[in-house]
Amino acid sequence: MEELPNILAQRYASNEMVSLWSPQNRILEERRLWVAILEAQKNAGLHISPEAIKAYKAVTENIDMDSIRAREAQTHHDVKARIDEFCALAGHEEIHQGLTSRDLTESIEQKLLLKSLKLILDKSISLLHVFSRRIDEFKTTPLVARTHNVPAQITTLGRRLAMFAEELLFAIEALEALIQRFPARGIKGAIGTQIDLYQLFDGDENKIKTLEKDILAWMGLTHACLTPGQIYPRSLDFSIVATFLQLSSGPASFAKTFRLMAGQGLASESFSKGQTGSSAMPHKNNPRLSERIASLQSILRGHLAQASDLLGNQWNEGDVACSAVRRVMLPDACFTLDGILETCAYIVAEASFNAEAMKAEVTQELPYLLSSSILAEATAHGVGREKAHDQIKKHMQMLHNKHGSLEEFLALIAKDTSLCISYDFIATLKANPLKAAGPAAKQTEALLRHISHCHKNTNNSLTPLKTQPL
Amino acid sequence: MEELPNILAQRYASNEMVSLWSPQNRILEERRLWVAILEAQKNAGLHISPEAIKAYKAVTENIDMDSIRAREAQTHHDVKARIDEFCALAGHEEIHQGLTSRDLTESIEQKLLLKSLKLILDKSISLLHVFSRRIDEFKTTPLVARTHNVPAQITTLGRRLAMFAEELLFAIEALEALIQRFPARGIKGAIGTQIDLYQLFDGDENKIKTLEKDILAWMGLTHACLTPGQIYPRSLDFSIVATFLQLSSGPASFAKTFRLMAGQGLASESFSKGQTGSSAMPHKNNPRLSERIASLQSILRGHLAQASDLLGNQWNEGDVACSAVRRVMLPDACFTLDGILETCAYIVAEASFNAEAMKAEVTQELPYLLSSSILAEATAHGVGREKAHDQIKKHMQMLHNKHGSLEEFLALIAKDTSLCISYDFIATLKANPLKAAGPAAKQTEALLRHISHCHKNTNNSLTPLKTQPL
Amino acid sequence: MEELPNILAQRYASNEMVSLWSPQNRILEERRLWVAILEAQKNAGLHISPEAIKAYKAVTENIDMDSIRAREAQTHHDVKARIDEFCALAGHEEIHQGLTSRDLTESIEQKLLLKSLKLILDKSISLLHVFSRRIDEFKTTPLVARTHNVPAQITTLGRRLAMFAEELLFAIEALEALIQRFPARGIKGAIGTQIDLYQLFDGDENKIKTLEKDILAWMGLTHACLTPGQIYPRSLDFSIVATFLQLSSGPASFAKTFRLMAGQGLASESFSKGQTGSSAMPHKNNPRLSERIASLQSILRGHLAQASDLLGNQWNEGDVACSAVRRVMLPDACFTLDGILETCAYIVAEASFNAEAMKAEVTQELPYLLSSSILAEATAHGVGREKAHDQIKKHMQMLHNKHGSLEEFLALIAKDTSLCISYDFIATLKANPLKAAGPAAKQTEALLRHISHCHKNTNNSLTPLKTQPL
Amino acid sequence: MEELPNILAQRYASNEMVSLWSPQNRILEERRLWVAILEAQKNAGLHISPEAIKAYKAVTENIDMDSIRAREAQTHHDVKARIDEFCALAGHEEIHQGLTSRDLTESIEQKLLLKSLKLILDKSISLLHVFSRRIDEFKTTPLVARTHNVPAQITTLGRRLAMFAEELLFAIEALEALIQRFPARGIKGAIGTQIDLYQLFDGDENKIKTLEKDILAWMGLTHACLTPGQIYPRSLDFSIVATFLQLSSGPASFAKTFRLMAGQGLASESFSKGQTGSSAMPHKNNPRLSERIASLQSILRGHLAQASDLLGNQWNEGDVACSAVRRVMLPDACFTLDGILETCAYIVAEASFNAEAMKAEVTQELPYLLSSSILAEATAHGVGREKAHDQIKKHMQMLHNKHGSLEEFLALIAKDTSLCISYDFIATLKANPLKAAGPAAKQTEALLRHISHCHKNTNNSLTPLKTQPL
Repeated sequence: MEELPNILAQRYASNEMVSLWSPQNRILEERRLWVAILEAQKNAGLHISPEAIKAYKAVTENIDMDSIRAREAQTHHDVKARIDEFCALAGHEEIHQGLTSRDLTESIEQKLLLKSLKLILDKSISLLHVFSRRIDEFKTTPLVARTHNVPAQITTLGRRLAMFAEELLFAIEALEALIQRFPARGIKGAIGTQIDLYQLFDGDENKIKTLEKDILAWMGLTHACLTPGQIYPRSLDFSIVATFLQLSSGPASFAKTFRLMAGQGLASESFSKGQTGSSAMPHKNNPRLSERIASLQSILRGHLAQASDLLGNQWNEGDVACSAVRRVMLPDACFTLDGILETCAYIVAEASFNAEAMKAEVTQELPYLLSSSILAEATAHGVGREKAHDQIKKHMQMLHNKHGSLEEFLALIAKDTSLCISYDFIATLKANPLKAAGPAAKQTEALLRHISHCHKNTNNSLTPLKTQPL
Repeated sequence: MEELPNILAQRYASNEMVSLWSPQNRILEERRLWVAILEAQKNAGLHISPEAIKAYKAVTENIDMDSIRAREAQTHHDVKARIDEFCALAGHEEIHQGLTSRDLTESIEQKLLLKSLKLILDKSISLLHVFSRRIDEFKTTPLVARTHNVPAQITTLGRRLAMFAEELLFAIEALEALIQRFPARGIKGAIGTQIDLYQLFDGDENKIKTLEKDILAWMGLTHACLTPGQIYPRSLDFSIVATFLQLSSGPASFAKTFRLMAGQGLASESFSKGQTGSSAMPHKNNPRLSERIASLQSILRGHLAQASDLLGNQWNEGDVACSAVRRVMLPDACFTLDGILETCAYIVAEASFNAEAMKAEVTQELPYLLSSSILAEATAHGVGREKAHDQIKKHMQMLHNKHGSLEEFLALIAKDTSLCISYDFIATLKANPLKAAGPAAKQTEALLRHISHCHKNTNNSLTPLKTQPL
Repeated sequence: MEELPNILAQRYASNEMVSLWSPQNRILEERRLWVAILEAQKNAGLHISPEAIKAYKAVTENIDMDSIRAREAQTHHDVKARIDEFCALAGHEEIHQGLTSRDLTESIEQKLLLKSLKLILDKSISLLHVFSRRIDEFKTTPLVARTHNVPAQITTLGRRLAMFAEELLFAIEALEALIQRFPARGIKGAIGTQIDLYQLFDGDENKIKTLEKDILAWMGLTHACLTPGQIYPRSLDFSIVATFLQLSSGPASFAKTFRLMAGQGLASESFSKGQTGSSAMPHKNNPRLSERIASLQSILRGHLAQASDLLGNQWNEGDVACSAVRRVMLPDACFTLDGILETCAYIVAEASFNAEAMKAEVTQELPYLLSSSILAEATAHGVGREKAHDQIKKHMQMLHNKHGSLEEFLALIAKDTSLCISYDFIATLKANPLKAAGPAAKQTEALLRHISHCHKNTNNSLTPLKTQPL
Repeated sequence: MEELPNILAQRYASNEMVSLWSPQNRILEERRLWVAILEAQKNAGLHISPEAIKAYKAVTENIDMDSIRAREAQTHHDVKARIDEFCALAGHEEIHQGLTSRDLTESIEQKLLLKSLKLILDKSISLLHVFSRRIDEFKTTPLVARTHNVPAQITTLGRRLAMFAEELLFAIEALEALIQRFPARGIKGAIGTQIDLYQLFDGDENKIKTLEKDILAWMGLTHACLTPGQIYPRSLDFSIVATFLQLSSGPASFAKTFRLMAGQGLASESFSKGQTGSSAMPHKNNPRLSERIASLQSILRGHLAQASDLLGNQWNEGDVACSAVRRVMLPDACFTLDGILETCAYIVAEASFNAEAMKAEVTQELPYLLSSSILAEATAHGVGREKAHDQIKKHMQMLHNKHGSLEEFLALIAKDTSLCISYDFIATLKANPLKAAGPAAKQTEALLRHISHCHKNTNNSLTPLKTQPL
């Protein structure tokens, strides 16, 4: 039977992210680590033959998955199978001295996680800049803001997008701090005590430190756990997945709002040539990519549940009750978030906003939208807040009941002397609804300045989407 | 780049379950449905040429994934791509009349789910019988029962296993009821109103009913949703995944307890020939399959979180915000539970229980284990419960403090006239600790009778495990 | 410091449900169980003085929480504190013979759960009937159906509501089956072996069976676990919470759709007299109760995570690693679902649907909505499906680009002879848009018949909501 | 009916934490904020009468919950009810100008969260130091380390505890960074645009900035969101709950391991005077507090699910679909983690470790534990790793099969010249098993130095537990 593909890798994640987690790349990184350790052991004074190092190096990229699988089928132990394969290729038996399986597997997973985190960081910043461009484009485009999904006040389209961009920004800052804090598990042996290295170096702890420093440098990290068990604390995996969820939040709230806007005809995703909207309803332009983001986020919530299950569950010095979960969850969580970021960048960059429809909505809702400005104006002129509130509400309801026009409403307000609202105030609002958005545009500009100042974009090209929905 | 495999399918699920969810099988089932619908349409009076039906049937199994993928890349619509392919192969354009994409996709997913549920049911019953055999084997083997992980009273090994088997039994009954209640979504069109079939049959609702009945029969179901939207209610998917969790509970509690027993040397998983216990510690026989069950259950908890995210989230008549989740979650949840059942059957069938170690523990803990029997005896003879409790506790602590023997303890108890315990009573307990297990064996037999009476095993052969841990 | 209230009980659950789980009621039920056991023990032949039974009965409702708390503070054991209190009140020391704490606590929790399940069932059926009334009211009111939140085809308002009602119906059937399957844990002693009863009855197993039968009858259940441990399997708790989630799904999807409808001005929640819409925006009528349902469902998802954490986690014969969770989760899940059902019934019963706005939307979207009917008609007349699809899409886009009227669109379609659509067909659709809803009304009636036939409403009065949002 | 208590507050959280979240304290903080805003408005140039400020200040602590509830029952709007009450008390109507409900509620919740985070930080550091004391006490006490719950190698008890302390340490560092990053939502009005303040200050944005700065200072924060909506991004709540989970992980893994140790008789929780072990089994000393930690962590996982449900779910500028969740989840998550930290500190501080039992286990397992040392020694002497592995395994199995003594085993090893192990090496290990723990003690000391250097303990007194289990 042929193999079932990983759907997340196949349909949603970028090739870059998928390659990182391929079985081949894992083995490649593992062999590089073995070689790095040989070199570090030599550097720390152990007798390692230069020929062996050379021989191992020469065959590092010579990866034959079938041969490895055959060995595993025999020994029932995956690390041993990979040791045997590498040794057979090199014709030496020097790697893995002073090591235990976990020294390998934990270090490789940390290396892959770290690379994934950095890739995610790049993409998140890149997405932030895609947002910035559209925010800047629409920072003064009036838009009906909604709370409870009901028209509330006036904002701008750029200001709306800025909400989601700032949420992403907060998450990026959390991710940066997480990468900073990331501790290597280190070469700590079967239960964390480094007994194997200790014997290998005849009890010379300075040599162990020398070796650890070299390996930290190879990992690209600055510090290691001091007292781990067989494994590094699984709450570190959890903190990664939790940060992924946080990173997905801005994009997902954007996508949810985008689906609402599509429902009102205010926005639509770009339509690729030849794309079919719906097999039964030829006219439809569905926000299917936005729906995809919701879907991917639900998947990520599953990964969070899995990660939260591992944490607090260590028995003694550790075991493999986390193994299958991590095999699945670590790459899949990376694929899922990768897919969310890619998809979001595509929607934001390509979205059409319907200027006419946005304007029409502002016009239609204006009387209602102005109510809080009128309330604020009344109280600014000394009218009791609660009295003004009741009075305005009365006028709104009258207007609503007889489908009155904006003019009729403003006339009612102006005539109501208990509210102390001048005709001038009303005329200004009517002529320039953006005045009712207050500092919306200024706030937006402050955010854009902050983004361009703190987060340089290193990755300007947008990857085309792998699969169209659904 | 080569494709990443689905890890759950590759390492943990049975081939039978994996084949069910392969892309090829999906397409095969879809084509069968199209043909079934053509026949049902013909049966309901629509003009469908017999040649077309024949032509489609002839090419049903002629599945070329690359060709389909090429079409999807062009149209960006997966269902349309598969229609085009099937029509091109058959040289007709008659399928999918009166249908919309969801009529296809929902029906196929329900068909695959239904087949999976039945496979799971078979395997669960089979596992129940594997448990039964070991329960019967050990139903009178004394064992120290533990609560709070601390020795409590005497039970039997079979009685302990029976706890987990009965939990599985309850879940099996829930699964059977779920399969009974399973409603087809049916051929309901784009929003559920069946407008397409309605027009196809010129408004003749009887013909629609005829067609639906034929399709229900093809699905193997007895009833359909009356008023679904574009999709069937997603809480039905949730109820499946929730039942999977319930099914995993008995096996997982068994596995957890097995790990505890392994820690005390009371039990061990079988060791395959050539298997390596640990690359650093040659002596170890680790309960790694039991740990795998814990791991797979954590994965399943993730699927539950995903399923619970879909429920209650329908917007209007539906959309694809559930699409990516279901693509991943539905097969993966089936693979995961399948892996749990397979692994558990393997452990239960092959486990070694260390008779000597179990006996030694009973002997060592006997004084403590008898305390509740003594308490019960005292109260049965009219001694106030709380007074007896305090008195026995006092004797236990004295014994504990001076590492006293069972004899010394029993002497203390017999001497304490306030407890009204006869020497005879004590002598009997000492001679036959099983007496202190009360009706344990009888309860166990009652369970075995219930199992063999209500749940015929249809699948006696045990599948060998696909991969050894870790 | 004064006590913090349980927010769910205080703000969202009905008084009936809250009383059930009050500390007083728990103690009351526990005392009733003790008395029932005394009577059952007497019935099974044990010597129990009638005076003691009488004395205990007389003080059953004499509950002094402060006194019990004082005892617990001293003994640090809650069950012992409650035994002491009840005995002190009655002046006897006969209860709890042959019992262990878990016999009490598990049985009482099962009793409360069972009562809660029945209350939930009544309310769910009652909500189903509230839905029925509104469904019947609007079964022929045309409404724009949406998929992907974008106008799709025509349905009716009643038909839309019917989707959610049928989802609730499926969940009700699951709940009924769950109640049917519910097994008592029974009086099984500290590790499940019934050793205490065994000694109490001098090894006479028939007496144990007699007692168990009496207690089952008192519980209102038909069968008990055969081989539990200290506790009943925690996957049973899980299956309850999972069924709660399933029950919440129809109401939550309704509420989500209602919020969308409110956003378009199609529907609004009733406004109580004196209620303030928003302190800043006097005009707003927010769907805050619908939002509350979303909020309560999120809470319930948390309970599901908790319940799923207990399952598969039994160590040996059991422990209290589930205790704090169940103290919180069991009542809180009942309160939360109760709040959802109450809130949903209130919204459905009181909702205003804006006939004018619904009609206006139908008129505006008509050309687009008819496209699938036209497609179906074309294919029914032998036009190739994909060709017709492309042709209609072309016309839609032209219409859209020049803001054409329905008339213009229909003229285009009629003129396009490749589609084979007659003017008559078009004229009929235009005159009676409901024709394009196909069998929507008929489907709806079928559901209403099914509901009134299978699920008698026993509880016609609607509880007024405890707290208004937010 | 009397009110149901919040169980978490009543049984598990400290009074300090509970007071923080009491309804009274919420109202107190809210009134303080109103006064702070009045003063800031005055400071920014608004005409606010000093008498009004004085009058409000005078009645700040005059909190009558019943009166507030009566007002809410009438207006159905909680914030309005509290405005009315405060104004009625002060005899002025000046507060809440330029504000909307969310300005209040979001700010107060952030204030309470911030105080809770700081309290949690103090307690976590305090717990770290409780760990430190016991780690230091046992840093050279030999202990059998276990992987897969099976004896593996030798470690020390202090080194085992250090694993959990370091995991806590990592989480503390995450919490510190989280507090650093915490952004205020700020006084941003109904949709975030600050239109109300803008009008209040006649469009003078500098005055708005002045006011915001004053309020930030009052909040105790350094920066605010630039472009929030009605609400601050809910992923910030999530990041708090996720950090709580991370903080719970070290304590929970410790507790799990403690339960395992209790099962082997290596450790026990302290027994309070008068405490009853078990009502049926007088002898038992159950690790019930450790089980409580597991239980509380399961509850926290529920809060995580709730928090993850809010994130990515913002519709437009926001709504109250998060309201009920946050009312329940925010305080409850604080209570739960508080309970975990308190309970863990109690167990760690008071735990008894059974020196004799630990020593006996080391002696019994020694042959097996030394196997990896022997393996390492053999490879250090140039023996091929895999050959040595097979050889040692062969000896272990022979030993195991005939229950051989340590002496016999060592003789076998010494005799096997293919392993190149000297008698001296073996004699040393036998005399001083700690040598086989390698740098365990040194690693432990490094951790203790790091803790005492980086995290000053500010809170030395241990709170006594509120309730004993279960």
